[in-house]
Amino acid sequence: MDHYRVKPGDKIDLSEWNPDDHSHYSGSKEDAESEIQSACVQLGLLQQLLAAERKHKVLVILQAMDTGGKDGVVRRVFSETNPQGVRVVSFKVPTAPEADHDYLWRVHQQTPGKGELIVFNRSHYEDVLVVRVHNLVPKNIWSKRYDHINAFEKTLADEGTLILKFYLHISKAEQRQRLLDRLEDPAKNWKFAAGDLKERELWNDYMAAYEDLLNKTSTTYAPWYLIPANHKWYRDFLISKIICSELASLDMKYPQIVEDLSTYRAQLEKESGA
Amino acid sequence: MDHYRVKPGDKIDLSEWNPDDHSHYSGSKEDAESEIQSACVQLGLLQQLLAAERKHKVLVILQAMDTGGKDGVVRRVFSETNPQGVRVVSFKVPTAPEADHDYLWRVHQQTPGKGELIVFNRSHYEDVLVVRVHNLVPKNIWSKRYDHINAFEKTLADEGTLILKFYLHISKAEQRQRLLDRLEDPAKNWKFAAGDLKERELWNDYMAAYEDLLNKTSTTYAPWYLIPANHKWYRDFLISKIICSELASLDMKYPQIVEDLSTYRAQLEKESGA
Repeated sequence: MDHYRVKPGDKIDLSEWNPDDHSHYSGSKEDAESEIQSACVQLGLLQQLLAAERKHKVLVILQAMDTGGKDGVVRRVFSETNPQGVRVVSFKVPTAPEADHDYLWRVHQQTPGKGELIVFNRSHYEDVLVVRVHNLVPKNIWSKRYDHINAFEKTLADEGTLILKFYLHISKAEQRQRLLDRLEDPAKNWKFAAGDLKERELWNDYMAAYEDLLNKTSTTYAPWYLIPANHKWYRDFLISKIICSELASLDMKYPQIVEDLSTYRAQLEKESGA
Repeated sequence: MDHYRVKPGDKIDLSEWNPDDHSHYSGSKEDAESEIQSACVQLGLLQQLLAAERKHKVLVILQAMDTGGKDGVVRRVFSETNPQGVRVVSFKVPTAPEADHDYLWRVHQQTPGKGELIVFNRSHYEDVLVVRVHNLVPKNIWSKRYDHINAFEKTLADEGTLILKFYLHISKAEQRQRLLDRLEDPAKNWKFAAGDLKERELWNDYMAAYEDLLNKTSTTYAPWYLIPANHKWYRDFLISKIICSELASLDMKYPQIVEDLSTYRAQLEKESGA
């Protein structure tokens, strides 16, 4: 797993990262599917423990190009978690009050509280991606945001949040195929927007923006994982394993009940008896 | 005014700052009162401009020991502003959802949007004051917060917020007198709480915490002003002048209406005509 974690100081060149890579798993795709299912069940148990202990906060950030698989990851990897303790937040075009404040204002509001697992399906990183590629604010403004974001995530981490960030790396050819699928399959038509093709024309600009982001904002306290994502099974395999491993390392415990519970048991048993 | 601004790198020793000081005004107290009134009116006009232009955001932070005069400053200095564009936020003991998040979570939510002037009557600085003095979290947690706070304020400033921070410096003897007033005057009894005397016993710890705060969090983008506050008139004089001067330096303009308004005027004039 460590192979896919971007270390501070790394100089990532995305053209050297093969989106078809699945070299760190030696089994078959079917073997992997069964391992994913086990990991999802384990994640369900870890999330229950997280909610019961109410000590840690967990933030998972998903970023990718259109069709990159963010929705697929949410559906699959979190399939065995309890919606009561898990919330998926999608950030759309800012509303008027959101646009009146700094770009982290709406994001901070959605961060997890104790015992919560929050998934950002897109995030504040769009403020150095789409905002940069489309020049929505001048460079002297967006270029300062890498430092803001690192500091923001440092505060969250220092105050008890585990932060895991995943960039789902697909190829331009794979995106073409997935967009064609959306056009051909009536059940997928709704996911297609004409704007997707406009964004696709800016592919190289987005790759440059992603490279900068990976090189500037992968920290010890909030690392990026660069996930090869042309193969959905390999993507889900890596992400589910990484999240489980990181949650397990929190060494969570169910709260100890210090009272003697036998009195309560006796009271209930008496009620049914006679 | 510059005399009272704490510069980055300064080493403040509060025992060297006389709370009775009023040396930077040569007129009488009556002259000062009339200057304060003019400054309040000017602040009202500047705030109207701020709201009309909807470009800048303004955050005023007030910190002081109990009876230090925060409420008095709000009442006097903002007496001529429009409540529609000015909001005073008091941070009390955190609610359960607030306590489940990092300490800046609730604070960030209350920061000003474009055109707004927000006054924090107490603030995130309590998280390195009362929290530190009472050991509400361990030192390895609160000691990291100075950096968090500087980074948080840097983000706000980079994204268009003018931040002005005032520490109202009173003496322990002056606090004693003001607490006695609260006990003696039935109209002021409600402001007294038994806990105030407990806090007063920790005066020296608070002074140490304030010194650290002034030395670590006064920045070019969010400076602290150390206001001698035993004399209410001098306190209000300094604060009203400083806020006016800082707002004036934003060089705000009423939005230009580019349309030709004569058509509308003609339409309305026709209506009233015979």
